[in-house]
Amino acid sequence: MNIPDDAFYALLTQALQRRAEETLQRTLYHALRQAILKGTLHPQCRLPGSRTIAQQLHLSRNTVNAALEQLTTEGFLLRDRQGSQVAALPQATVSSPDSHPVIGLSPHLNLLPPGTRRDSPTLAFTPGMPAVNYFPLPLWRRLLDRVLREEGSMLLGYGDSAGEPSLRVAIARHLALSRGINCDASQIVITEGAREGLNLCTQLLSERGQLAWLEDPGYFGARSAFIAAGLAFRGLPVDEEGMCFQTMDVSAPRLIFASPSHQFPLGTLMSATRRLALLEFARKAKAWIIEDDYDSEFRYSGVPIPAMLGMVPDAPVVYLGTFSKTLFPSLRIGFMVMPKALAASVQPAIESLLRGGHRAEQRALALFIEEGHYARHLASMRRLYRKRQTQLRAALKEELTVPHQVSAGEGGMHLTVKIAEIDDGAVVDLARQYQMAPAALSRFYLDPACGETGLVLGYGNTSASGFASGIRVLNRLIAQTRPGRG
Amino acid sequence: MNIPDDAFYALLTQALQRRAEETLQRTLYHALRQAILKGTLHPQCRLPGSRTIAQQLHLSRNTVNAALEQLTTEGFLLRDRQGSQVAALPQATVSSPDSHPVIGLSPHLNLLPPGTRRDSPTLAFTPGMPAVNYFPLPLWRRLLDRVLREEGSMLLGYGDSAGEPSLRVAIARHLALSRGINCDASQIVITEGAREGLNLCTQLLSERGQLAWLEDPGYFGARSAFIAAGLAFRGLPVDEEGMCFQTMDVSAPRLIFASPSHQFPLGTLMSATRRLALLEFARKAKAWIIEDDYDSEFRYSGVPIPAMLGMVPDAPVVYLGTFSKTLFPSLRIGFMVMPKALAASVQPAIESLLRGGHRAEQRALALFIEEGHYARHLASMRRLYRKRQTQLRAALKEELTVPHQVSAGEGGMHLTVKIAEIDDGAVVDLARQYQMAPAALSRFYLDPACGETGLVLGYGNTSASGFASGIRVLNRLIAQTRPGRG
Repeated sequence: MNIPDDAFYALLTQALQRRAEETLQRTLYHALRQAILKGTLHPQCRLPGSRTIAQQLHLSRNTVNAALEQLTTEGFLLRDRQGSQVAALPQATVSSPDSHPVIGLSPHLNLLPPGTRRDSPTLAFTPGMPAVNYFPLPLWRRLLDRVLREEGSMLLGYGDSAGEPSLRVAIARHLALSRGINCDASQIVITEGAREGLNLCTQLLSERGQLAWLEDPGYFGARSAFIAAGLAFRGLPVDEEGMCFQTMDVSAPRLIFASPSHQFPLGTLMSATRRLALLEFARKAKAWIIEDDYDSEFRYSGVPIPAMLGMVPDAPVVYLGTFSKTLFPSLRIGFMVMPKALAASVQPAIESLLRGGHRAEQRALALFIEEGHYARHLASMRRLYRKRQTQLRAALKEELTVPHQVSAGEGGMHLTVKIAEIDDGAVVDLARQYQMAPAALSRFYLDPACGETGLVLGYGNTSASGFASGIRVLNRLIAQTRPGRG
Repeated sequence: MNIPDDAFYALLTQALQRRAEETLQRTLYHALRQAILKGTLHPQCRLPGSRTIAQQLHLSRNTVNAALEQLTTEGFLLRDRQGSQVAALPQATVSSPDSHPVIGLSPHLNLLPPGTRRDSPTLAFTPGMPAVNYFPLPLWRRLLDRVLREEGSMLLGYGDSAGEPSLRVAIARHLALSRGINCDASQIVITEGAREGLNLCTQLLSERGQLAWLEDPGYFGARSAFIAAGLAFRGLPVDEEGMCFQTMDVSAPRLIFASPSHQFPLGTLMSATRRLALLEFARKAKAWIIEDDYDSEFRYSGVPIPAMLGMVPDAPVVYLGTFSKTLFPSLRIGFMVMPKALAASVQPAIESLLRGGHRAEQRALALFIEEGHYARHLASMRRLYRKRQTQLRAALKEELTVPHQVSAGEGGMHLTVKIAEIDDGAVVDLARQYQMAPAALSRFYLDPACGETGLVLGYGNTSASGFASGIRVLNRLIAQTRPGRG
């Protein structure tokens, strides 16, 4: 079973000649290992003694011994007094180049809605993208560095599963003032943005196969989360008072996902009547409302609308907030607020499911809030976005000649323009050539073929100076893609 | 239905007197809203005109009008020519103080293993906690700040769902050299540590109700992930060659979770024979191996053992790596490496499921690797941990007088000491009073009552100067808690 000496040394010499950044010992080790795995060195094949190998290859004996020892530790070689012998390894796996490794991906993956393309934040009209160039980055850098300098290596461990206590306290204070939510830090869990909050809700509050309601059209992160959790889901239409639901519905949902303060994408504010009715329904149906409050800090008439969570005592509501829109998306910090009793019940599960971390960023954000920078930044963004919304409405009036209707929206960072009978997907695809990334309204419907068509225009990241020319281009693209009118 | 004037003004005057940080307008708004929700102001109740209210309360008419308008927008008031009228809201929810909001938590939550307590990183002997005080934090701060300064607001958007391309390239290069894995950036997905990688594996590769194998004893993050995904699971014993499995097993698993390079917690290195057999079995059973490579960079004899992923072509293996152990836990950056064909198939799902983000941290880490700091830090930690392991073994020999056996471990940052017939949970609880946080070995078994007992002693975060005195205390605690020997 032995290999001829010259074949053996030729093999190793070649490997040593091809050696790039590796040490001699590792090169030797890899070459022998590869030869054993490939079967070039057969099981039970005896290797020459380490002294001989060293002499032949002009290597030190230590180098050779180290490589042989490593292979012995791993079970590729057996060493005895006579030297080294190749171990008898199972051979079948060694080569099966035709076996395709992609076996049985989960079928539910096919149901997932397509992800959003994550381009540069500078593409005009991107929905959900805030004015990141107005974010006080030098200040943020200072706070982050201050935290890392002052706290040092104490911040490098895992930290609290629910997130940094100082950040949770700061958020609780902010929510009381701005969102009418009276809560304390124990009711708050820091998440990786609203999306992780949604996943947590499905894990904590639902079982596979149960029913979830969501708004149609709506945020498709909710759909992905429900699909991933194996929930059945049903889209509910949205009218001018918000999500429409029938309390007589045969099968009651377990989860109800809604964005009452500023429906995405239509911009509707859910009326007080509808809110109270939904709360009452949820209580009776033993369902949980997941209140997505993604951009309600930006409200341009009156004060921000208080959240459903704070509306009645013990509302069966889990509130999801995020800093992706108010600060910047790559921060990936969001939070979930639960009623007190729920927070206490799920605490052990939170400790088992979440790992904490990102402590420096969370501490820096706590300082950002506590020192008043957050409130200041919000106020300044509110002014900026209010002005931009007015300017965008003006540009639409001026430049959009196709029949259209601007959907209600007193706040936020986007306007939804309904335009009947267009291929909005095609318009959006063409728009990218002009450095514009509005979204197609039909895409937010569970069945895009049955949804209304139009454009969702974000103005968070787009300077008003580009509105008129941008809308003019979109107007032309719309005309081009309308088959009957070309 | 009207409210008497004096009751109405008394209500508002009280609210205005109690006003803390709010504006007059918001105080008025909240007081009216609360009165409507509570039913103090009945449906259809007519309010006085805004001019009258303003005069009575000594407020400006603008303030009153703004509050009334906000309530009208939200649907609490109806305004007509005669003034404002309270809307007819559903009343039932308004007060139901006895309804308990914690309804139907997911029953599977009860199955979750308890989370690890996340104390200060300075508690002695904490398993899995690296020497964070040796991490070059000033250098890290410089790199992070450099990235934020140079890239500026471009880094504030979402970024690539699979993580920063520059970091994936750097990881691919590092893996080729240190772990024998030849892959490119397209096969790598950046995750929030190994735990998110595990959750992704269950989502992508399994369906609820399928079977997963895991090591018993083993990492309980795997158990949590499988429970959360609704998988059935079975623990497989671990012998001196690694996980023991029967290929004749009646029901084949879908996922196999293993830590072949350094079994957690026993420290076993899976032999080459066992690895090849497991690969072959997985291929035939159409199962995926999830290879947890949590600390194999720290290997003290020979070079680090190459991963199973790189062992044979197209191995049905998903590899999970993390920087939590090699750098610091709160960084929360890990990664998943997939075979090429799998990576291509799951790309759309990754885009739908993941949101990217943490771009500055990922870019800083890419620089840290590319500029050679990572390799240097690894080498220096390897020296430190090797020395500490030797010193801890010596301290155990010297100070641990109860019969015990130190489990195999050529690397890593912990030693597992088997000690028969002790209440290891009680020892661990007592040890916390002495600022020590070793883990109880029995806790890592699926059924702690049937597992071996002993202590898992981390030395990553513990200076050798404390070993002797620490082990002496533990020795005393063990003696105290042995019922028959007190």
